[in-house]
Amino acid sequence: MKRVGIIGVTGYAGQQLLWILAQHPNVEIAALSSRSYAGQCVSEVFPSYAYSGEGEERVGVEQLLLSDEAFAEKIPQLDLIFLALPHGLSQPLAKAAFDSGVKVVDLGADFRFDDALSYEQHYNATHSEKDLNGIAVYGLPELNREQIKGAPLVASPGCYPTSAILGLAPLIDAGVIELNGIIVDAKSGTTGAGRGAKTTSLYCEVNENFKAYGVLNHRHRPEIEEKLTNVYRESLAGRNRSESVNITFTPHLLPCNRGILSTIYATLIEPKSEEELYSIYRDFYQNEPFVRIQSALPELHHVTHTNLCDIGLRVDERGERVVIVSVIDNLIKGAAGQAVQNMNLLFGFNENEGLTFRSMTI
Amino acid sequence: MKRVGIIGVTGYAGQQLLWILAQHPNVEIAALSSRSYAGQCVSEVFPSYAYSGEGEERVGVEQLLLSDEAFAEKIPQLDLIFLALPHGLSQPLAKAAFDSGVKVVDLGADFRFDDALSYEQHYNATHSEKDLNGIAVYGLPELNREQIKGAPLVASPGCYPTSAILGLAPLIDAGVIELNGIIVDAKSGTTGAGRGAKTTSLYCEVNENFKAYGVLNHRHRPEIEEKLTNVYRESLAGRNRSESVNITFTPHLLPCNRGILSTIYATLIEPKSEEELYSIYRDFYQNEPFVRIQSALPELHHVTHTNLCDIGLRVDERGERVVIVSVIDNLIKGAAGQAVQNMNLLFGFNENEGLTFRSMTI
Amino acid sequence: MKRVGIIGVTGYAGQQLLWILAQHPNVEIAALSSRSYAGQCVSEVFPSYAYSGEGEERVGVEQLLLSDEAFAEKIPQLDLIFLALPHGLSQPLAKAAFDSGVKVVDLGADFRFDDALSYEQHYNATHSEKDLNGIAVYGLPELNREQIKGAPLVASPGCYPTSAILGLAPLIDAGVIELNGIIVDAKSGTTGAGRGAKTTSLYCEVNENFKAYGVLNHRHRPEIEEKLTNVYRESLAGRNRSESVNITFTPHLLPCNRGILSTIYATLIEPKSEEELYSIYRDFYQNEPFVRIQSALPELHHVTHTNLCDIGLRVDERGERVVIVSVIDNLIKGAAGQAVQNMNLLFGFNENEGLTFRSMTI
Amino acid sequence: MKRVGIIGVTGYAGQQLLWILAQHPNVEIAALSSRSYAGQCVSEVFPSYAYSGEGEERVGVEQLLLSDEAFAEKIPQLDLIFLALPHGLSQPLAKAAFDSGVKVVDLGADFRFDDALSYEQHYNATHSEKDLNGIAVYGLPELNREQIKGAPLVASPGCYPTSAILGLAPLIDAGVIELNGIIVDAKSGTTGAGRGAKTTSLYCEVNENFKAYGVLNHRHRPEIEEKLTNVYRESLAGRNRSESVNITFTPHLLPCNRGILSTIYATLIEPKSEEELYSIYRDFYQNEPFVRIQSALPELHHVTHTNLCDIGLRVDERGERVVIVSVIDNLIKGAAGQAVQNMNLLFGFNENEGLTFRSMTI
Repeated sequence: MKRVGIIGVTGYAGQQLLWILAQHPNVEIAALSSRSYAGQCVSEVFPSYAYSGEGEERVGVEQLLLSDEAFAEKIPQLDLIFLALPHGLSQPLAKAAFDSGVKVVDLGADFRFDDALSYEQHYNATHSEKDLNGIAVYGLPELNREQIKGAPLVASPGCYPTSAILGLAPLIDAGVIELNGIIVDAKSGTTGAGRGAKTTSLYCEVNENFKAYGVLNHRHRPEIEEKLTNVYRESLAGRNRSESVNITFTPHLLPCNRGILSTIYATLIEPKSEEELYSIYRDFYQNEPFVRIQSALPELHHVTHTNLCDIGLRVDERGERVVIVSVIDNLIKGAAGQAVQNMNLLFGFNENEGLTFRSMTI
Repeated sequence: MKRVGIIGVTGYAGQQLLWILAQHPNVEIAALSSRSYAGQCVSEVFPSYAYSGEGEERVGVEQLLLSDEAFAEKIPQLDLIFLALPHGLSQPLAKAAFDSGVKVVDLGADFRFDDALSYEQHYNATHSEKDLNGIAVYGLPELNREQIKGAPLVASPGCYPTSAILGLAPLIDAGVIELNGIIVDAKSGTTGAGRGAKTTSLYCEVNENFKAYGVLNHRHRPEIEEKLTNVYRESLAGRNRSESVNITFTPHLLPCNRGILSTIYATLIEPKSEEELYSIYRDFYQNEPFVRIQSALPELHHVTHTNLCDIGLRVDERGERVVIVSVIDNLIKGAAGQAVQNMNLLFGFNENEGLTFRSMTI
Repeated sequence: MKRVGIIGVTGYAGQQLLWILAQHPNVEIAALSSRSYAGQCVSEVFPSYAYSGEGEERVGVEQLLLSDEAFAEKIPQLDLIFLALPHGLSQPLAKAAFDSGVKVVDLGADFRFDDALSYEQHYNATHSEKDLNGIAVYGLPELNREQIKGAPLVASPGCYPTSAILGLAPLIDAGVIELNGIIVDAKSGTTGAGRGAKTTSLYCEVNENFKAYGVLNHRHRPEIEEKLTNVYRESLAGRNRSESVNITFTPHLLPCNRGILSTIYATLIEPKSEEELYSIYRDFYQNEPFVRIQSALPELHHVTHTNLCDIGLRVDERGERVVIVSVIDNLIKGAAGQAVQNMNLLFGFNENEGLTFRSMTI
Repeated sequence: MKRVGIIGVTGYAGQQLLWILAQHPNVEIAALSSRSYAGQCVSEVFPSYAYSGEGEERVGVEQLLLSDEAFAEKIPQLDLIFLALPHGLSQPLAKAAFDSGVKVVDLGADFRFDDALSYEQHYNATHSEKDLNGIAVYGLPELNREQIKGAPLVASPGCYPTSAILGLAPLIDAGVIELNGIIVDAKSGTTGAGRGAKTTSLYCEVNENFKAYGVLNHRHRPEIEEKLTNVYRESLAGRNRSESVNITFTPHLLPCNRGILSTIYATLIEPKSEEELYSIYRDFYQNEPFVRIQSALPELHHVTHTNLCDIGLRVDERGERVVIVSVIDNLIKGAAGQAVQNMNLLFGFNENEGLTFRSMTI
């Protein structure tokens, strides 16, 4: 039984993490923290966790939410901490945990780039733990499974990057698409905007509305480009090449709670049939527990409330252009589920332990 | 052409008021104020008002939103001001306008009670303009049309009270229902919660959710009771009686933007048929431009985006109990539309001037 | 390992049943049937069930959906069948199963009334299995746990009745409320309208709308009245009395997928405090695994995607009237979850086996 | 006062047309037809049209909905008919009207292509009125204003094409983008799926879901390509060229009622700044009453419930690629509003007569 803690448990990703961990057979939730609700019990903040007499409560309803400071003191008693914080806040906590020999899974952006300077550039902030960044591993198991297993700190990918990278990696690895001119037109449910009380996140502003935002300057674009460029440079086709992957990325805000659907457009270097491309995907993901290649184009309903990523594609009649549709639940495979998948790898558990729940669809 | 101003134009009621007044043929919008957006143009805050070249703009897109102070200075140049403010803020502004001989239509709660002491009791606040309260008229035209015409200050009713009072007044006036044991189970769209940035109003908290709130202690209950008691005391049956109307009122928050549906339960003093009760309603509202008696039970879609109130009813097989369904658009008949209806009365315009728009339904 | 089958698996209740049973550790899904999709695989109809390589599939994706006839032939090989059909279709299938010694849990209305004549009256249909109806048990475990355990056929309650009966039973059992004048104002998510392709269930007709329906003549009213009258007659107060419980029931359609919230109004025979009434509820449900008494009034979000029923209440200042709020997930505690709870009782499993999943809330 | 009729008034486009025409000062609605509701009054089918005593009803509530046959007989008494029918049904009715000298505005697809053979190819159907197709004019006023004025038959554009063509025409006319590799990633509200009772249009299937459909083979793609190719061939750059515009088009279904947002990607032939491109748009649409060029990227809320098209754009830092966002209300500028705009041109009314209503935003 491993002892884990969550800092930032009352945001949407933190809530989802609590939900998953509360049912995970191999962990004990030993500490929870929330800046906004410190001093309250879990069941006060989330009545859905109230005791119901089953005699099976995994999350003690009496468990207090700690202040950040009180949590920091508890770190050394843990085996692993999950950081579910706005970017910029994870660095000192990750360092403290590392110094105590405690594993870290960070759901934020602080340690996602290969070089901390990229973080500083794209997030317009300084990075106080550049050395630690150097040994952090990007936590996308489908690309980095082996490195994750031994990492002291895993930086769980952003929600949009998870969807985009999983949707594009097989074609980049196979060297069949142009590295330029790739378009990722992504649409996210509103939990992606976080639980902060902003006018733009109010029910009446989002409901019956739809908009693009962060066009051409969203911070997830360089993350996608860096990781896909890495895929290219490790591929047969790209081994000795210096080109980089170049993405046009447009995120949009959907009037629903959960899910990301990315519609991805790429140009084929040489004409290929739909079947040929499907083979590339099936081979690339053949042993993956959480990626499904679907002949029917996927919809949000097929994956919401799961840790799955569903991918389908179409090729135009001239075999010149491919359209890929990749869907995930932004809070699960795009955040908390992937974080637990990383924890499972770190602890040597079955990779799908605690993550096999299915979509209720409706 | 009358010169009008709106203070609090960027809240939901204020926005709706702007929409209606911008199309009203007999008024000029001479001043707009917003605490949060002072110094910005209308079209900056609301891009839906951007100029489109039609050459017909009624709201100048260059029109600046004023600070409260700058607005206050402009009051004497106006014929009428609309106050669309949180309760407690209207009192000094209304007084300033009154002293300048400017008419006031207040969409807030400050002047709704017959006696300012009731306001102080139910809103737990002091009332600085008790004298002015004494000459204010409650702006429900279906009950107080003649008094409104000459009033210096009209207190537009709350959204829930509009729906509940219109739904019950005919039966209380006819003396056919018990004054005790009346239940108003009301459901409101989320614009009713206002445009303030609160966690409980976030999209993901309201969407796919439904809840009661303010059970047994909502401030609209005493407003409903006072006004219906007045109806009773002015009726044949209640002329010399001292009983009061007693309401159990439960508001709920609906996952949609607009509309209030009140399901109202009352006990018939003597058995009546559905037809008899429908006759009472048809007679009571026979000349009303904005109340429709419907044989099919009304739905929100029938009245959203209009100034209409639709009412239908059913009587149980024993003729003992009546269920009334009353629907309005909370922002129009429940706020801005009713305020304009009151303005029309104050200025001697046709009562439905600027208010004849229909529901697009979907 | 018990072998179970579902007939009507592609409706919303059937889908939910599949979801729960696919994760239940003690059952094997041995046969599935669907009139509309016969001959297709589960994963063709519901891509969310597609194989993902985890090597843990509980529902074989190759499992064909059977025609009703082919299913009927398989009945004798099963230990239990779930019937998730429109009312009127369960009678011959239930009889066939009974004759083969196969247990039946019917999610429809055919066997819910004590007397089949009540079914005939309220559903305006003939009942072909009146004898079988006589030995069926109403499957609300909180009232009939012991009888359910040995029953050959369990009639799972309707969704509205589950919410209303659980909300009222403690007060009726305690003899503290008037049997007349009880009002159940209930609001249901749209899955409650079923998966049939009707204009009134279209997205654009339900979205941004809200309406009452079946006012004073909904078929769940007599079901609620009969079962609560039984509670009364078995109570200390009602043991030798002949009065019946009389309900005014108004269902409404909510623009969301799941959940029922019932706002219930009753008159206290003698004044009681909120604390006294809370005690009655806590005592009545003290050992119940799926009923939670909440001091904060419950919201749909607290129970959707769970088998829980949350109940809270308020008493007016004069102690005369009580308002009870009772919430469930209409597809789980109101249908499929309760059916599995009944199955657990029939087979002697832990009552909460396969039913301990929590709400993801958002 | 012109006499007009609508055939297909109970679909979503037909309903919207009724709403607009009922308020149009220069027309009389002389005949309405509906296959599904023939023989019922308008106010029976749409209670939002019930008489409310204002004494101003423009659509007689007693007006019966006619059968198609009864409508056909009335055609000669009209000045103009609107056809709001599924594709394939307009041809004989348009011919009958033409033969009687009655103007036709068809909201369907039957007469949209320059050559009826294109219709036959893309809609997989025969076209019975090829000659009439030859004299029909494509009713996008921003491109074909002068030809529309004298046309006997105007084919109103599809909803997606309106959004895509208005978004791209200025850049194609200016000759600054590649004709190949244009991507239109479009998202439509669910009214776009029509009012037919299909499982895929049910509330619970659309709500909390999002999906692409008709990828690479939607029938609006060839319509967009043909009309933009025409723009190119009439431009300075394209005057003597034979290239065609080539679009990759992906429509998606949004969980909201109204609106289309198209995110459009194109490659600049030579680097341009954002300002240069904005100038091209402002010049191209400088006198247009219903197209607004917005510096902030447009959202659905800015245009829903209006006849406006809002357009904004961004250029990447290298000046190589432009992202254009174009939004309309699919039922108004994408259907009924545009049809009325065409009628205004045909009758010589002010082009914006009856179309100046603004968005209520929320």
